[in-house]
Amino acid sequence: MTKGVKLYEGKAKTLYEGPEPGTIIQYFKDDATAFNNVKKGTIAGKGIINNRITDLVMRRLENIGIPTHYIKRLSDREQLVKKVEIVPLEVIVRNIAAGSMSKKFGVEEGTRLSRPLVEFSLKNDDLGDPLMAEEHVLVLGLATEEELDDIIDMALQINDFLRGMFAAIGIELVDFKLEFGRLVEDDTVQLVLADEFSPDNCRLWDFETGEKLDKDRFRRDLGGEVEAYQEVARRLGISLEAAE
Amino acid sequence: MTKGVKLYEGKAKTLYEGPEPGTIIQYFKDDATAFNNVKKGTIAGKGIINNRITDLVMRRLENIGIPTHYIKRLSDREQLVKKVEIVPLEVIVRNIAAGSMSKKFGVEEGTRLSRPLVEFSLKNDDLGDPLMAEEHVLVLGLATEEELDDIIDMALQINDFLRGMFAAIGIELVDFKLEFGRLVEDDTVQLVLADEFSPDNCRLWDFETGEKLDKDRFRRDLGGEVEAYQEVARRLGISLEAAE
Ligand SMILES: Nc1ncnc2c1ncn2[C@@H]1O[C@H](COP(=O)(O)OP(=O)(O)OP(=O)(O)O)[C@@H](O)[C@H]1O
Ligand SMILES: Nc1ncnc2c1ncn2[C@@H]1O[C@H](COP(=O)(O)OP(=O)(O)OP(=O)(O)O)[C@@H](O)[C@H]1O
Ligand SMILES: [Mg+2]
Ligand SMILES: [Mg+2]
Repeated sequence: MTKGVKLYEGKAKTLYEGPEPGTIIQYFKDDATAFNNVKKGTIAGKGIINNRITDLVMRRLENIGIPTHYIKRLSDREQLVKKVEIVPLEVIVRNIAAGSMSKKFGVEEGTRLSRPLVEFSLKNDDLGDPLMAEEHVLVLGLATEEELDDIIDMALQINDFLRGMFAAIGIELVDFKLEFGRLVEDDTVQLVLADEFSPDNCRLWDFETGEKLDKDRFRRDLGGEVEAYQEVARRLGISLEAAE
Repeated sequence: MTKGVKLYEGKAKTLYEGPEPGTIIQYFKDDATAFNNVKKGTIAGKGIINNRITDLVMRRLENIGIPTHYIKRLSDREQLVKKVEIVPLEVIVRNIAAGSMSKKFGVEEGTRLSRPLVEFSLKNDDLGDPLMAEEHVLVLGLATEEELDDIIDMALQINDFLRGMFAAIGIELVDFKLEFGRLVEDDTVQLVLADEFSPDNCRLWDFETGEKLDKDRFRRDLGGEVEAYQEVARRLGISLEAAE
């Protein structure tokens, strides 16, 4: 491909300079990590699936007016995006209590929340991505009040859309993590959705069986990770045979 | 005294039924704990001092219009308060980063915040009093939006007043923890300041020397706890000889 210099090697993706200035190529790896890097492994073919699912989701979100960093898919494992300055927050939207929220606050996993919850964690692996309040975001100068309001509005709209999209294929969208970035173009700065959307960063439960179709299979040693990711892709109408 | 049935034995205080229905006697102990009960000890005479400091602070706050649970001091270690339904939140106001905030978010201790920060932790020792956002408070139904707004307004007003009060005696108010409760009287529910205000629940730094005049002396094995608590009382004009 047209990959340039390697810019960053993350846990699930590697970033390369793109062909044009201001572009980046996201290369999706099969590496999987959990519990802040304590558990490591691979899920064969995950990168290919996540590239495809992210491609589909980003295009559909653009279509309803959510600004994103997305340009297009380049190959099996590569997609072209606009380079942004990442807001150092993990933006988590929750519809049902699970994972860290259940553990931290003693809310039984599976408890439906009275309304969607938008959570912020500091994106800092050394500190373990600590949960913070909006007040911390503002006082620490991580985002402006206007940016935070925009992030919350977008996160909730994305949640509504994706819940519908997954409901249509028999899947409950329990929670998911987003990242946003500042896109500088022609001297204007725009807040856009960045990073990825894939079963690595969300919880998806089969409506009928309750089966987990996401990275919890890996986190909790449930087995069948590859099949679960494939099943999500399949239900989304993604044909992995024609993926290259 | 007129103490009735023991209602609750906490880490720093014991609660007894008061003489009238709807009243409680707070008995201040010398017991000190830190790091969610991992470290335990006693600070001789602390209960007497904290009872006096809380008495002074509650009366002064009432005087500027903050509604509190406070009625009056009964003896060296006892004070009479109105029984409330405690909102299960630790409300922390921070002017300067220190303690858990510094550790959690990697902000150097002593960093002045651009504005006072009001933090909420779930009051639950088993869960380690986890930090939460306002959104969690609302979604988990721990307080209403109106109550939260009231709590924040009161916390900030209390902060302004107490910063002034401590500045006048050469002390920087770094942070402090408050608890609020719902007071039911004549079929109306009012949110009031409850619990205590003492060096057990705040950080006080001498303006000149930077010396810590609070429970951090105990937490960090600095020694001189008794003297520090006495010094705060002395500067506040409290005469401990006439305490009984
Ligand atoms: N458009 C973009 N411009 C610049 N950086 C981006 C863009 N989109 C995503 N990123 C960053 O690229 C990196 C992707 O790497 P990866 O997903 O492996 O994450 P990571 O750094 O290991 O951390 P985490 O697990 O917290 O996501 C992330 O740091 C992400 O913030
Ligand atoms: N007016 C009031 N009515 C009812 N309960 C009160 C009132 N004021 C304070 N309390 C409660 O009394 C208890 C005082 O005990 P203590 O200060 O020893 O705390 P604790 O329970 O050990 O926990 P913590 O360390 O979190 O304060 C606290 O649980 C506090 O919430
Ligand atoms: Mg990532
Ligand atoms: Mg207490």
